[in-house]
Amino acid sequence: METLDELAATLGPRHCLTEPDDIAPYAVDWRGTWHGTPRAVLRPGSTEEVAATLRACAAQGLSVVPAGGRTGLCGGAIVAQNGPPSVVLSLERMNRIRDVDARDFSLVAEAGCVIQNVQQAAVAVDRLFPLSWGAQGSAMVGGALSTNAGGIRTLRWGNARDLVMGLEVVLPDGRVLNDLRRVRKDNSGYALRHLFLGGEGTLGVITAAALRLVPALKRVETAFVAVPSPDAALALFSRVMESGADVIAFELIIGECMEIVSRNGIGIRIPLPVGSPWYVMVELAAAHPSVPLREMLEDTLAAGAEAEEVLDAAIAENEAQRAMIWRIREDWPDCGRREAPSVNTDTAVPVSAVPAFCARVGAALAERWPEGRLIAIGHAGDGNIHVSLMAPRGTDYAAWSVRASGAEEVVNAIAVDLGGSFSAEHGIGQSKRHAMATHKDKVALDLMRAVKAVIDPTGMMNPGKMLP
Amino acid sequence: METLDELAATLGPRHCLTEPDDIAPYAVDWRGTWHGTPRAVLRPGSTEEVAATLRACAAQGLSVVPAGGRTGLCGGAIVAQNGPPSVVLSLERMNRIRDVDARDFSLVAEAGCVIQNVQQAAVAVDRLFPLSWGAQGSAMVGGALSTNAGGIRTLRWGNARDLVMGLEVVLPDGRVLNDLRRVRKDNSGYALRHLFLGGEGTLGVITAAALRLVPALKRVETAFVAVPSPDAALALFSRVMESGADVIAFELIIGECMEIVSRNGIGIRIPLPVGSPWYVMVELAAAHPSVPLREMLEDTLAAGAEAEEVLDAAIAENEAQRAMIWRIREDWPDCGRREAPSVNTDTAVPVSAVPAFCARVGAALAERWPEGRLIAIGHAGDGNIHVSLMAPRGTDYAAWSVRASGAEEVVNAIAVDLGGSFSAEHGIGQSKRHAMATHKDKVALDLMRAVKAVIDPTGMMNPGKMLP
Repeated sequence: METLDELAATLGPRHCLTEPDDIAPYAVDWRGTWHGTPRAVLRPGSTEEVAATLRACAAQGLSVVPAGGRTGLCGGAIVAQNGPPSVVLSLERMNRIRDVDARDFSLVAEAGCVIQNVQQAAVAVDRLFPLSWGAQGSAMVGGALSTNAGGIRTLRWGNARDLVMGLEVVLPDGRVLNDLRRVRKDNSGYALRHLFLGGEGTLGVITAAALRLVPALKRVETAFVAVPSPDAALALFSRVMESGADVIAFELIIGECMEIVSRNGIGIRIPLPVGSPWYVMVELAAAHPSVPLREMLEDTLAAGAEAEEVLDAAIAENEAQRAMIWRIREDWPDCGRREAPSVNTDTAVPVSAVPAFCARVGAALAERWPEGRLIAIGHAGDGNIHVSLMAPRGTDYAAWSVRASGAEEVVNAIAVDLGGSFSAEHGIGQSKRHAMATHKDKVALDLMRAVKAVIDPTGMMNPGKMLP
Repeated sequence: METLDELAATLGPRHCLTEPDDIAPYAVDWRGTWHGTPRAVLRPGSTEEVAATLRACAAQGLSVVPAGGRTGLCGGAIVAQNGPPSVVLSLERMNRIRDVDARDFSLVAEAGCVIQNVQQAAVAVDRLFPLSWGAQGSAMVGGALSTNAGGIRTLRWGNARDLVMGLEVVLPDGRVLNDLRRVRKDNSGYALRHLFLGGEGTLGVITAAALRLVPALKRVETAFVAVPSPDAALALFSRVMESGADVIAFELIIGECMEIVSRNGIGIRIPLPVGSPWYVMVELAAAHPSVPLREMLEDTLAAGAEAEEVLDAAIAENEAQRAMIWRIREDWPDCGRREAPSVNTDTAVPVSAVPAFCARVGAALAERWPEGRLIAIGHAGDGNIHVSLMAPRGTDYAAWSVRASGAEEVVNAIAVDLGGSFSAEHGIGQSKRHAMATHKDKVALDLMRAVKAVIDPTGMMNPGKMLP
């Protein structure tokens, strides 16, 4: 194919992969859910090479699927089945941290930087890059920004979107939108970068970003708390927010999860007896060791116990205990998979609607699938509870998964009815396009299509993703 | 005119103003800089009436200039001279706070709510709406969001944009984009609301917003600090950020300002001797009275003095002293105007570039206008320093203003050269369109025009504003 020869000449043959063995890793997502074979995998090493790649693809009518660490959960970086001929454009070689500036509380990173490397570059100058989630050792900046990644700490520092000051983006026609500035205030026209942040590569390719850093954390206190109900958890959330401490995480977990973690976790020790209906993980942090964080946490939990919001609590006494609490949270997906298959969701509701959401979802799922198990685990501080319907132990899993597949829509509909979202932090990709068609405001969909048509008129960028 | 009759019938004659006396207040901005007479002033009382108004105007070829509290500094809410026939659409009657939810840390307000009323509604449920600036007693939600207003506290809680969870927008064709949700995480397609936030009414009319609240502040400590240089101020900024306290303001002010405030301020007492080359105002806050904020501030200032970043400091001992420190900042614009006319700017640079910016601007202005006075006052914590060139006392002000008018471009060019913005927090409106043409990235301008063309194809929304 002429284009590929041309690109092989531009990028070097090592960076224009066409052999099936070389392409194979890019043709399936890490969970093995999404499959799609690209014509080639292109690995440009610079912004200019990304631009040349897009121009060449446009000229030859090839569609482009941008890819980073490929840790996404929605198939966004995998070629869609039955779509137009496509290449994968991997940003993995653009992995330079161009600048770190402690006094500026900023860092400029290319799209192919692994999130953990960005975190470490910040640590090296006594700063924190707050974005953090399980896949941070593989996920890359470009993917994190294109999916507006969330995670544990969004409660305090926001999603990926909120940590970006400036962007460099290559448009489908190869032009470069050069807005890579470390400016915290800029009111000069439309905030174009917010189209590409969370745009899932459907409008262009993010090649670099100016990111915000915050002061390094010098003290952290973490508690694992048994609570009687989501309502009590929410009351405790207000109490913790009013404690005067910086609340950097507030996770809500249904009791069932602890029993499953006890059975399936390897080397995990749960710091409280299993058996509470719900649990909370709360983490406070401070940028200076003199902040009396421990007292703040103890006083808050004591007041919470007094008000019957807290049944029992364990405060981590050292870093090992703290790490153990977070392992419960981070290993949950693996533990859950080992236990039984489940139908998963990614909803968010207003924070104050979390108790009603949990109650309605529990009742609706129990009515239709009384044998299923309700799983609820998530970031209660931003209303983002991941509800799953898990198969009962020892059932015929294949048959059950088919029977239970409607559970996602039941949960989505309840979230939307409560003024929430059917897609909180994972994005749409391929897996939630049907939910976009069902639940997204029709005027919003029209506007999205209009924006897409004007920035990517040929539809070459990541076809079959996001827009239904 | 048929449309106006129709609208008078729909809105009621009291809300379709056509008499010159009724229209006059809407035909000039509060500083008397911008003049433009609308055909009528329309005051719809509901989202549906806004939609009906836009549909009627579209049908009759009338352009629409949305207006709120009309405290803007760039002429964005005033009809442009020599433009197409226009009406002013005032949101002032849409002034309901639809919902306040303490546990949710949220509030839903209509576009015509005065910012101060939003703040008070938050206080009533023991919460804080953090957006705050001088004009908050008149400015309205719709204008604050459409200009992405900034102010003193953006360092901690961001600009207006960052406090919005959901929006209700009427599009030029009368369709309603209904995204008025209190959801903190929503990754379901393009973040359309960010086009309207800071869009200056050129894409549609914001009619309501779901806004974030934060815990009420239970303790505040404020210091007025003499520093030897911007470089020292920036070193102190890092030190304060690392103190463990929540830093909610960090303002940098050139010494000249204190002399001018001493001469022109009415009842203002400056808490330190005039004569330092630069001053800083720093404010720390906490959501609980137990946080040892005073000690944090004292320790930080003592360490800063040790490192020769601090020459002298006064900490407010009570609320009256705190209010006095902030009066110096808030009354500055009036004091400056009483002293002499000046050419003003609204630039931002990377925080770490603030010292270089101040030095380069000072040298460039002194070279070309040696008789002028350098004024620099602004939000150093986000790199947003407002530089002005002030006339010398007792000169021929009219002639001087003409001679000095090029100073804005000198300052803008230096900010842009340092990777900054020529328009940090006030917006573009009519007054900075020429700077957009000079300094804005050409690809960004093309994309903005493309987005404008697709959402407002007839160009009826706020013509002559923002886009050059």
